[in-house]
Amino acid sequence: MTVEAFDTVDVIAAKRDGQALSKEQIDWVIDAYTRGVVAEEQMAALAMAIFINDMEPVEIANWTQAMIASGERMDFSSLTRPTSDKHSTGGVGDKITLPLAPLVAVFDVAVPQLSGRGLGHTGGTLDKLESIPGWQAGLSNAAIVDQLEDIGAVICAAGTGLASADKKLYALRDTTSTVDCIPLIASSIMSKKIAEGTSGLVLDVKVGSGAFMKDLRKARTLAQTMVDLGQAAGVNTSALLTDMSTPLGLTVGNALEVRESVEVLAGGGPADVVDLTVALAEEMLRLAGKTDVDVRAALSDGRAMDVWKRMIRAQNGDPEAPLPVAEHTEVVTATESGVLTKLDALSVGVASWRLGAGRARKEDPVQDVAGIELHAKPGDSVTAGQPLMTLHTATPERFSRAIASLDDAVEIGGDAASVPESIVFEKIT
Amino acid sequence: MTVEAFDTVDVIAAKRDGQALSKEQIDWVIDAYTRGVVAEEQMAALAMAIFINDMEPVEIANWTQAMIASGERMDFSSLTRPTSDKHSTGGVGDKITLPLAPLVAVFDVAVPQLSGRGLGHTGGTLDKLESIPGWQAGLSNAAIVDQLEDIGAVICAAGTGLASADKKLYALRDTTSTVDCIPLIASSIMSKKIAEGTSGLVLDVKVGSGAFMKDLRKARTLAQTMVDLGQAAGVNTSALLTDMSTPLGLTVGNALEVRESVEVLAGGGPADVVDLTVALAEEMLRLAGKTDVDVRAALSDGRAMDVWKRMIRAQNGDPEAPLPVAEHTEVVTATESGVLTKLDALSVGVASWRLGAGRARKEDPVQDVAGIELHAKPGDSVTAGQPLMTLHTATPERFSRAIASLDDAVEIGGDAASVPESIVFEKIT
Repeated sequence: MTVEAFDTVDVIAAKRDGQALSKEQIDWVIDAYTRGVVAEEQMAALAMAIFINDMEPVEIANWTQAMIASGERMDFSSLTRPTSDKHSTGGVGDKITLPLAPLVAVFDVAVPQLSGRGLGHTGGTLDKLESIPGWQAGLSNAAIVDQLEDIGAVICAAGTGLASADKKLYALRDTTSTVDCIPLIASSIMSKKIAEGTSGLVLDVKVGSGAFMKDLRKARTLAQTMVDLGQAAGVNTSALLTDMSTPLGLTVGNALEVRESVEVLAGGGPADVVDLTVALAEEMLRLAGKTDVDVRAALSDGRAMDVWKRMIRAQNGDPEAPLPVAEHTEVVTATESGVLTKLDALSVGVASWRLGAGRARKEDPVQDVAGIELHAKPGDSVTAGQPLMTLHTATPERFSRAIASLDDAVEIGGDAASVPESIVFEKIT
Repeated sequence: MTVEAFDTVDVIAAKRDGQALSKEQIDWVIDAYTRGVVAEEQMAALAMAIFINDMEPVEIANWTQAMIASGERMDFSSLTRPTSDKHSTGGVGDKITLPLAPLVAVFDVAVPQLSGRGLGHTGGTLDKLESIPGWQAGLSNAAIVDQLEDIGAVICAAGTGLASADKKLYALRDTTSTVDCIPLIASSIMSKKIAEGTSGLVLDVKVGSGAFMKDLRKARTLAQTMVDLGQAAGVNTSALLTDMSTPLGLTVGNALEVRESVEVLAGGGPADVVDLTVALAEEMLRLAGKTDVDVRAALSDGRAMDVWKRMIRAQNGDPEAPLPVAEHTEVVTATESGVLTKLDALSVGVASWRLGAGRARKEDPVQDVAGIELHAKPGDSVTAGQPLMTLHTATPERFSRAIASLDDAVEIGGDAASVPESIVFEKIT
């Protein structure tokens, strides 16, 4: 029988009463939770106390370290090139990882993108890539290292062994209204990224209706908290605060977003996707010590596309195979003429989800073909009757609920739209 | 499949964000918790949010009503006399229920004392009575009503059907550091007492080291909250705030406290026990409309003792049988001469618990014979070497840990002790 270092009720009571938890208390409570000694209802009470009473920076750092210690760590030190990674807090139409990883790899910086599947209205990177015929998400740790050395980029499923406590806590927070809490969000993201063993990390913190953080001030606090955690753990970390008031690019949905990513890799694609891909690539390369590089050239001259094709083939995917296409489409048209002043990211994300692109529960399947093509973006002039978007699905009975979620998504006005000048609002280093 | 009226995470989030919960939300969440639709970890998060963000009086009243609705209600309306009950928040040496119930019954007011067993350092009324040879705690509802009509007093085990949600929530609070919270304490106590169906109720809210509430201000808030809940539910309710800085009377432990209770019923007994018994009896009788009664006379002339003997016999107990006596005793003596300025209730309670009078877990047995006799009380002059207390147990290996808990229990000084003038500090109506 193990003699426990602390009593769970005392640790909960300390945070309940607004005290800072010691490193010893945090190490113990995370480890005991992993071992099942701290019960789910006890962690729920503690998470609520953390939510309401907050944590000091040193507590968040200790909490993150304890989460890292709860699982295995990866090690890329055998690689001949530096590693740099990106994490997005999640948005609608956010396919940036797909062109970004091969683009950065062009410049001899290895990109280990250990990714997840989507839940709710934001899509998952693995779900998108799985629409490519043959592509496999699962790789062993040894295969990840080999592919990073050989090709320079890998996008694959994160092993379940990283930050084990996070996996339990993440599921618990979802059912106990303790999700939207900066110490718990920051430690959850950063424990996985630090355990992953990257030497550089750029955080793409989304702001706006389609993002987790709806306002800039809170997004800035989250970004700064995560940058501090990364730096304290020896990971060269910075963050970009970027716009998520409207979907990224002109496609939302799995195969649709792969198609658009390939357009970007072919030197084309929507300006916002290209701009954000380039901004994140430049930042990832800067963190790896490469500052004087022409990133855009690698998109236009085909070097990024070459890495993409090798990366997809390495995981059994066929980059030349045609992507699946939906059997059923429905067009939404403009009801009046004027300037498109709003195209709400959350509404479009929910509509795409309802068409079948996302899942409501972890075990649900997703449709490769479902999603939405946008034919206009905020700032564009439209005329009444013109197509605004095309909805795609394999199951046409889904159209009505998807269209219902678009009720307040679109605004057409006489004035020019207040479109942000740049997709990147701020950089935090 | 039931369509639920609310989503659990929304109800938790509302209290988390400091909002008042509506009657509909509260009714739903208590019912859904009873049905298992709200999971333990969700109720833990909600309880913590209630602990930190508090509840408004109307929320506490609605919460109490919802807890009452979760179980069965008793009905004493068929009785030919009014009912009046007492609830103590728990203390050390608090045997008052034993002489009080028969004393009040003398005046044709029925006393339905549905009681519990002890947990931790405070003893349980049923544990005490079970040291009487033959006495049985369990009675059917019909038997309770019959005994109230016939004898006027019953002390028995509370049925598990009253306020079912409270039973689950009480156990959860114990492990999640959400015990010491006035809305949850008040609703827990009052839901059971209101469901019990008494028409009058006096609350004995203890204050001091041996009590749940250590300071007068918090005890006053708890008392006022409970009095308001009782009045709102149509129960004529008042509260006395009483001293629990030192043990009540001169005995702590099951058979020892029965012995002292019988002394009080015989017209003797320690002054503090007699004073508090009389004060509570007068208040219970006042709530039942009897104001001009000589309560002390019923102790000295044997009327209360007569009811006691009938009450004990009705539950198969033998009031004339000798009480069990401990085989092992140990005397603690005064280390110096002077006035006893402190005899700490909590320390004595813990010592008695460790001797075997109480239990650490619900399923533990208790010793009838274990406990402590006090030979001096604060304010008494003592001389070095004089016995201060006698420790009783059936298991002498327990003496050392019991004596260890008495380390700081006793203070002997040159000055007069600051002993409260009256055991009753305040009355709240």
